[in-house]
Amino acid sequence: MSSGPPIHVLRLGHRRERDKRITSHLGLTARAFGADCFHLAGEEDSNVLETLASVTDRFGGDFEARHEKRPLGWLRRFANEDAGDGSPGVAIHLTMYGQPWREVIPMLRRDRPMAIVVGGAKVPGEVYGICQYNVGIGNQPHSEVAALAVFLRDLLPTGSSPFEFPGGEIDIVPSVSNKHVNQVGINEDE
Amino acid sequence: MSSGPPIHVLRLGHRRERDKRITSHLGLTARAFGADCFHLAGEEDSNVLETLASVTDRFGGDFEARHEKRPLGWLRRFANEDAGDGSPGVAIHLTMYGQPWREVIPMLRRDRPMAIVVGGAKVPGEVYGICQYNVGIGNQPHSEVAALAVFLRDLLPTGSSPFEFPGGEIDIVPSVSNKHVNQVGINEDE
Repeated sequence: MSSGPPIHVLRLGHRRERDKRITSHLGLTARAFGADCFHLAGEEDSNVLETLASVTDRFGGDFEARHEKRPLGWLRRFANEDAGDGSPGVAIHLTMYGQPWREVIPMLRRDRPMAIVVGGAKVPGEVYGICQYNVGIGNQPHSEVAALAVFLRDLLPTGSSPFEFPGGEIDIVPSVSNKHVNQVGINEDE
Repeated sequence: MSSGPPIHVLRLGHRRERDKRITSHLGLTARAFGADCFHLAGEEDSNVLETLASVTDRFGGDFEARHEKRPLGWLRRFANEDAGDGSPGVAIHLTMYGQPWREVIPMLRRDRPMAIVVGGAKVPGEVYGICQYNVGIGNQPHSEVAALAVFLRDLLPTGSSPFEFPGGEIDIVPSVSNKHVNQVGINEDE
C-alpha cells in the first residue's frame, strides 16, 4: 500500500485461458510494489481475483482486486471527473510507444489518486487519449509485468525494506541462504 | 546488452505448457534490461527460444538464448570454476526469501561475469548454496518477471534512454500520444 492517495492498476483485455498467469503476476506485482487496487477488465476470471485475495489474506495488507465491466467508462470518469473523491485523477498508460518513464515520473502530481493502465493484446486507441500520460519503460518489447514493477518501483521508492503489509499470517524474514518463514498466527478478526 | 562483463539469466524448471508466456516474458525482460544471454532449463521449448531470436532479429542487439540441459552443473561451474573466461563468476539467486536487493547490489563486484538465477515452481535446495547471493526483491510473493526487471534496472542504471540495440529493423520513437515506429530497413547481412 502506498502512503499517499490510492494507486489503481487497470489491466485491460484479459483472456481467461491465455493470460491467467500473466494477469495473476500483474496483480501480485501491483500489490507487492505498493498499489492499492487492481481492476481486471476483459473476460471475467474469478480464479485470478481469488489468487489475489488469498495472497492478501495470508501475507497482509488491504489490497483490493475486482472485475471492471466497463473499463473505458471507468477510466474516462477517473481521469476527467471523479477519481473516487469527486475530482479527476491522474491516468498513466504504460506502453512501449510512450515517453521515457524517468522523464515522466518527476512530472507527476502526487496529491491525486493515480490509475496505471496496462494493456492486453490490443489496447483500444482511445486509451492513448483518455490517459494524461503514455509512458514507456524503455522502447523495447518486454512484459507488462516488468513495466509495472519498474514503474511502481521508481514511483514509490521505499528503503531497502519492502512496503508494510500488516495483518497477514505469514512473514518472511530475509535470509542469506535459507527459507525463513514466521507463521504469525491466524488473525482472529478476519 | 550491458557494457561490462556478460550477464547471464538462468531460468530453472520451465514447463512448456504452463510457463510458456511467463518464460517468454522473462527472456524478453532479460534482453530489454541489459542481460546478454538467457539460459532456459527444464523442459525444452523451441517456441520460447524462437520468440526471443525473432525479437532480437527485429529489434536489434546481440542477445542470445539457448537451452541448458544440465543447469546445476552449468551454474556450479560458473560460480566455482569458469564463468566463460577461465575464472569463477558471480551467481545470484532471486528469491523472496533472500536478502534485500538494495543492500546486496552495492556489494556485488562488477568486473566478473554474472549469472542471475530465477526459479520455476520448485527450486532445488542446492541452488541456495551454489549461488554466492540469495536476493529478495521485497519479501512478498509477486513474479519472477517483476523481480528480474527490478534487479536489472537497479544493477545497470541507464539514463532516461534505454540500452542500445543496434542492427534491428524496427525502431520505436518515444511519443506523447501515438505509436511512432521507424522501419529501419532489413539488415542484409543477417
